[in-house]
Amino acid sequence: MKVYLDNAATTPVASEVFEAMVPYLKNEFGNPSSTHSFGRQAKGTIETSRRKIASLINAKPSEIIFTSGGTEADNMAFTVAINQLGVKRVITSEIEHHAVIHTAENICEDKNVEFQLVKLLPNGHVDLDHLQELLEQGDKKTLVSLMHGNNEIGNLLPLKKVSELCRQNGAYFHSDTVQTMAHYKFDMQELDIDFITGAAHKFHGPKGVGFLYIKNEIKGLPFIHGGSQERGLRGGTENLYGIVGLAKAMEIAYEDLEEHQNHVQGLKSHMIAELKKNIEDIHFHGDITPENSLYTVVNVCIPPTPKASMLLFTLDIKGVACSGGSACTSGSAKGSHVLEGIKADTSRPNVRFSFSRYTTKEEVDFAVGILKEALEKELVD
Amino acid sequence: MKVYLDNAATTPVASEVFEAMVPYLKNEFGNPSSTHSFGRQAKGTIETSRRKIASLINAKPSEIIFTSGGTEADNMAFTVAINQLGVKRVITSEIEHHAVIHTAENICEDKNVEFQLVKLLPNGHVDLDHLQELLEQGDKKTLVSLMHGNNEIGNLLPLKKVSELCRQNGAYFHSDTVQTMAHYKFDMQELDIDFITGAAHKFHGPKGVGFLYIKNEIKGLPFIHGGSQERGLRGGTENLYGIVGLAKAMEIAYEDLEEHQNHVQGLKSHMIAELKKNIEDIHFHGDITPENSLYTVVNVCIPPTPKASMLLFTLDIKGVACSGGSACTSGSAKGSHVLEGIKADTSRPNVRFSFSRYTTKEEVDFAVGILKEALEKELVD
Ligand SMILES: Cc1ncc(COP(=O)(O)O)c(C=O)c1O
Ligand SMILES: Cc1ncc(COP(=O)(O)O)c(C=O)c1O
Repeated sequence: MKVYLDNAATTPVASEVFEAMVPYLKNEFGNPSSTHSFGRQAKGTIETSRRKIASLINAKPSEIIFTSGGTEADNMAFTVAINQLGVKRVITSEIEHHAVIHTAENICEDKNVEFQLVKLLPNGHVDLDHLQELLEQGDKKTLVSLMHGNNEIGNLLPLKKVSELCRQNGAYFHSDTVQTMAHYKFDMQELDIDFITGAAHKFHGPKGVGFLYIKNEIKGLPFIHGGSQERGLRGGTENLYGIVGLAKAMEIAYEDLEEHQNHVQGLKSHMIAELKKNIEDIHFHGDITPENSLYTVVNVCIPPTPKASMLLFTLDIKGVACSGGSACTSGSAKGSHVLEGIKADTSRPNVRFSFSRYTTKEEVDFAVGILKEALEKELVD
Repeated sequence: MKVYLDNAATTPVASEVFEAMVPYLKNEFGNPSSTHSFGRQAKGTIETSRRKIASLINAKPSEIIFTSGGTEADNMAFTVAINQLGVKRVITSEIEHHAVIHTAENICEDKNVEFQLVKLLPNGHVDLDHLQELLEQGDKKTLVSLMHGNNEIGNLLPLKKVSELCRQNGAYFHSDTVQTMAHYKFDMQELDIDFITGAAHKFHGPKGVGFLYIKNEIKGLPFIHGGSQERGLRGGTENLYGIVGLAKAMEIAYEDLEEHQNHVQGLKSHMIAELKKNIEDIHFHGDITPENSLYTVVNVCIPPTPKASMLLFTLDIKGVACSGGSACTSGSAKGSHVLEGIKADTSRPNVRFSFSRYTTKEEVDFAVGILKEALEKELVD
């Protein structure tokens, strides 16, 4: 048996998504910027996809900018906020994804923008009192960038509350929603956020495509200079098949959203219960209450073991694909900045299991069994 | 009959390329940054693709950086040259693609870098004497950015000569090779250029993927901040299927390169002859001699006609997809900056026909017939 429990890193493409992409990889290949029939058809396909995505999150089509993925979308949000909106201060947190934290650090230094970190509570949530304090200080134009669902520990930010705090204090609000897009409902009219992001491969769409939602169609300097694609914000021939796949993946995700949520939350709760039952002295990083936590992610804090470094490898050999921290830092040997950020006990090994709507209870049971076995064997070895 | 003669805008995906991509759109979907078997397999696939591409242009694998396309690769070259190499002057030309000229203008202004334009000769070629003159002036670290094959008029730059001029004067050299990659041989050991670029969709690969070649593995600040993918130069989960398609498309292009070159050059020469024979007072923009011109592109300068504005539309209706200027400036109503750059007579309509290895002589004859008919009908209408 081979079990994939690393869906926060990436998900398999849904077969309906693949089927939707095929015509555009075969005959319908025009350049959307061409004025002839091939081009117009491609352009029409892109605009239909844009409208579909916009309507799924209750936004205007012109507020959706296609990108090459979540990371580019996060980068673009900072560029737009600083270059177009005149932001002079960024408030973010230590446990953001590198696509946010590295971008913020670099662009703030490059553009002489103040950089501030909001405090975190012991359970990994953002300290909203401290955020309010920071927002009330000074009068620089501010961008708050706080992720919706943390990709390592699963903590969920109360989006509405933060957006209200930002509005009350005249700050812009960017939320990296890469882990929650197409996993939770978004109503941009109600939420009142300036920037959110999505990456298709996190919800059974293709890799290499994502989007940035920008409230109210801010115009201005491109993030990638070139042709006038994407309302001038991003030059370059569009990833036609990718965009089709993105729209299809979002569409099918939102069709049965509640059912998927219940199924996956059920798996997560079951796994937590089984782990507690089967492995002594087990803990979980972050907040695991269903209301405050991504239903797709659980981060397990394993009892101390001398063979901690071999644990992921052992699980992999035995057929369980999961992750220690984030998969998004290729080639990096560093530990998790998120677990450090929440001051977790990093002397203990940690394993992140992440689920998708295709995950089954049998797979979860198998993984728990393998983990138990790996730990017991290690203890006697 | 429906004839696609706009291959400089984009090309259909080769069926072999599609077949090579399918497994990665289906079962082999791991995130290359994951350490388990799914991830390692994806990582291996990307590195195999990188090695394949590097070997086709006689470069080192570590000199190939995957991007979302040609535009991003051009942007990245400027960012690396200015941020890492300390370039303080850019020399480019008026007839570069917008991915270069807009990037150069913007980044030079943003980073306080001198911006110079080299003169052009009446036939659209770069005035190499003027380039030498510019290079000999001043002692600022300089980047020369001149495209290899012009996407509108087809003029070819003598790459080796320009790279020698740059070396003699201590300047870095970037060439936008988006129109020539996989259409001409590149030997990076012999050519000695610092940056070249490729976009898969220009040679029967997928849209949304390309690469930047950077000589000698310059390291430094990323263009897109995030994870440490692409040696830290470009964060973001890699476009796995796209990269596979890019490598496959390049591989098959180079397998039969000479045969394709001969076939397509034959079509172009045939079309030029037929147009001259059938349409009075016809001219061609740029240099059309086979040694100095892209074999895939011909830009036709049509006799003045009162219905010029309807010409492309008429051709499209009659089944001939071609272009007036570049397709890469979506939504822009402006005329061609290239034709203006070479001071062409823009009161006459112009049509760009561009061919691929799949284009046939029958298709060319059909297009000539339709163009002739459209012009004659217009004249009597
Ligand atoms: C010469 C040239 N450079 C750059 C580009 C940009 O490539 P892409 O649209 O794939 O980003 C194109 C075509 O669009 C081109 O013809
Ligand atoms: C929270 C979060 N933000 C951003 C990203 C970056 O997305 P991508 O790798 O598609 O660029 C990821 C995952 O990689 C993520 O989990």
